[in-house]
Amino acid sequence: MELLKIGFQGVKGAFSEQALYNFFQEKVEIVAVKTFEDICLSLDNNLIEYGVLPIENSSTGAITDVYDLINKYDCYIVGETHVKVNHNLMGINGCNLEDIKEVYSHPQAFEQSKDFLKNYNWKLVPYYNTAKSAEYIMKKNSKNIAAIGSTKAAQIYNLNILASNINSNNQNTTRFIILGKKLETNPHCNKISVVLSTEHRAGALYNVLKHFAENNINMLKIESRPIGHTPWEYNFYIDFEGNIENETIKKALLHMEKDCHHFKILGNYKQVDKK
Amino acid sequence: MELLKIGFQGVKGAFSEQALYNFFQEKVEIVAVKTFEDICLSLDNNLIEYGVLPIENSSTGAITDVYDLINKYDCYIVGETHVKVNHNLMGINGCNLEDIKEVYSHPQAFEQSKDFLKNYNWKLVPYYNTAKSAEYIMKKNSKNIAAIGSTKAAQIYNLNILASNINSNNQNTTRFIILGKKLETNPHCNKISVVLSTEHRAGALYNVLKHFAENNINMLKIESRPIGHTPWEYNFYIDFEGNIENETIKKALLHMEKDCHHFKILGNYKQVDKK
Repeated sequence: MELLKIGFQGVKGAFSEQALYNFFQEKVEIVAVKTFEDICLSLDNNLIEYGVLPIENSSTGAITDVYDLINKYDCYIVGETHVKVNHNLMGINGCNLEDIKEVYSHPQAFEQSKDFLKNYNWKLVPYYNTAKSAEYIMKKNSKNIAAIGSTKAAQIYNLNILASNINSNNQNTTRFIILGKKLETNPHCNKISVVLSTEHRAGALYNVLKHFAENNINMLKIESRPIGHTPWEYNFYIDFEGNIENETIKKALLHMEKDCHHFKILGNYKQVDKK
Repeated sequence: MELLKIGFQGVKGAFSEQALYNFFQEKVEIVAVKTFEDICLSLDNNLIEYGVLPIENSSTGAITDVYDLINKYDCYIVGETHVKVNHNLMGINGCNLEDIKEVYSHPQAFEQSKDFLKNYNWKLVPYYNTAKSAEYIMKKNSKNIAAIGSTKAAQIYNLNILASNINSNNQNTTRFIILGKKLETNPHCNKISVVLSTEHRAGALYNVLKHFAENNINMLKIESRPIGHTPWEYNFYIDFEGNIENETIKKALLHMEKDCHHFKILGNYKQVDKK
């Protein structure tokens, strides 16, 4: 039997890879791609059945490139999963805190670890992602540089952890979405995502949102993103509770669509249980 | 007479500096600071009277760090200005396109110039900001590296422009806000910004937004940002048309405040005229 092909962005040890293992419990074939957009392109070209992308971090907010991609490409959210993101400072064997001159990591990791980093006078060098930063430190083999990333990245790239859990917020969590080629649903799906744009006049967005309130639908999140070539007009990404087979939901979606310029159902999936 | 002290983030040639000159037509004393947060700290410590910060780009969206800062610090938006952002590829004297191996710039500039960059196989190195990237290329004095930034940065750091206006969207514009220490208003102010959070239940956000619709107030923008230590709860930043001395607006603001957990008026200022 052929295994399902699942894509993630990054190199071994990336938080996306961990998200993939969280969601897909069965045995799958893993395809690592270079960029977020490569996930959508790989779906388009049937190189993978599903792809995993980070959409939001609990401390730093939306991963806006991914919001733009799911509107642009003909793909659908079929699931979500959370990964607790703990950052660690790591260096090669023999490296101590006082040796460090430069630290490599993704800018979001610097941001999420800023209270720890404030105590040192290190040059922070923004790099592609946390796992690639760890790989770079291993290759350079210098005591004067360190990386910030996961314990898994430290293991894979054979680095020592010099300070663990350096993120300011110990609840730091990234939400990942699982993208597929088709809109899927089943009776367990209890979260719906849509993207829409409205006319640019007083009350237009409110007119769309009223369908949530009137039907007692719980809106979970609203995110706004600029529309490509029209300055200061926005697409709104809205997550809410429900199943698209439910009659009330169906009616609300129809009404919303009528009140919008652009309207697309992005997916129906099972929400990660809240604590 | 002492000149007003105005802060901006970056080095000479930064787009923020240009925004400052757009807004303050009179002669002012300019104070360059290192980080966005330094603007708020300088206001707090009376080192500057006003500060200029980028809040939103028409192609890439919200500058989320700045949204978080204006909620955290006791400062107010007293004005806004737009700067057309055109990117240029620049190198030292004698550098040609075929010499280039690496390009330095802010990640947003790469994102905004991605259609141009797709045609080349250059390594893109994320750097602090566009002006600092130009400064770095000047200092390194190598034909194998180039920077992306403004024509002003090219002039200041004595670099040649190898390709001009390489941004994919020729309407690419950044909106800057002017921050002061007090809530200011005058009869010309026609835009209000607030930040608020609501209870986490069905219809809570809608209950707040209904005050805009009921009073025929034109909502211009809604932006959501995570609340620091509570995963998946949000602050909403809302811009709308009006003057805080207007009676309808006053009434709507009072009602909104009652329906919110957290509510802060961020400023009342004159909106940049739309085309």
